Amino acid sequence: MACIFCKIIKGEIPSMKLFESDKTFAFLDIQPLSYGHSLIIPKHHGAKLTDIPDDQLHEILPVAKKIAAASGCDDYNILQNNGRLAHQVVDHVHFHMIPKPNEKEGLGIGWPAQNADKDKLQKLLEEIKAKM
Amino acid sequence: MACIFCKIIKGEIPSMKLFESDKTFAFLDIQPLSYGHSLIIPKHHGAKLTDIPDDQLHEILPVAKKIAAASGCDDYNILQNNGRLAHQVVDHVHFHMIPKPNEKEGLGIGWPAQNADKDKLQKLLEEIKAKM
Repeated sequence: MACIFCKIIKGEIPSMKLFESDKTFAFLDIQPLSYGHSLIIPKHHGAKLTDIPDDQLHEILPVAKKIAAASGCDDYNILQNNGRLAHQVVDHVHFHMIPKPNEKEGLGIGWPAQNADKDKLQKLLEEIKAKM
Repeated sequence: MACIFCKIIKGEIPSMKLFESDKTFAFLDIQPLSYGHSLIIPKHHGAKLTDIPDDQLHEILPVAKKIAAASGCDDYNILQNNGRLAHQVVDHVHFHMIPKPNEKEGLGIGWPAQNADKDKLQKLLEEIKAKM
């Protein structure tokens, strides 16, 4: 298994561990966007969110919440990237908890909102619902 | 209750609903960053992740996963913003599922990684752990 996060979970690579349970592992990011930047990961290996069984996901947000509260940050982003285009670098699902202490540090966000066509959206809604 | 998302949950404001259970509500964003941009919210009102009880969070990611799969996008971001500095606009916790079909559409990400001082990080780790 060449996955760096699987090695961290197994303790084969050291990490700044914040939390561990049977399903979840959390540690400080050592190349942080801000102090307190943490990663919360399911122990179950999978590249994208769609690869992780539901029961391995239930604890992720409660742990992220716990770390956010303990880090004492007021403003913060929870982010999980899927695929290279979406800025994913390590192919093991990971949730970032990134404190946003000021404009400069933390996650930078670009928000290119579109004026969506209402009819197109309605059609899309039906398409997605049909596949759920 | 002036919260726009609480009104959407109650049906007082129409929405393009994708999913509803006793704890969770999901709908298409009508000012999307890309087609398929969806919002998944706990019915429990709270401004930030730290305001939501754990049991109201368990279903969020499984629902986001389901919508991501049904939307057919390969690359996508899951994002939840807390506080104005962190780009939060509506003060009811919401998770974005944002397809990233190309460089231009979808979420824009700025990643100002820092060269963190290892000793400082170790100290921070102990501080956060002590508060968890």
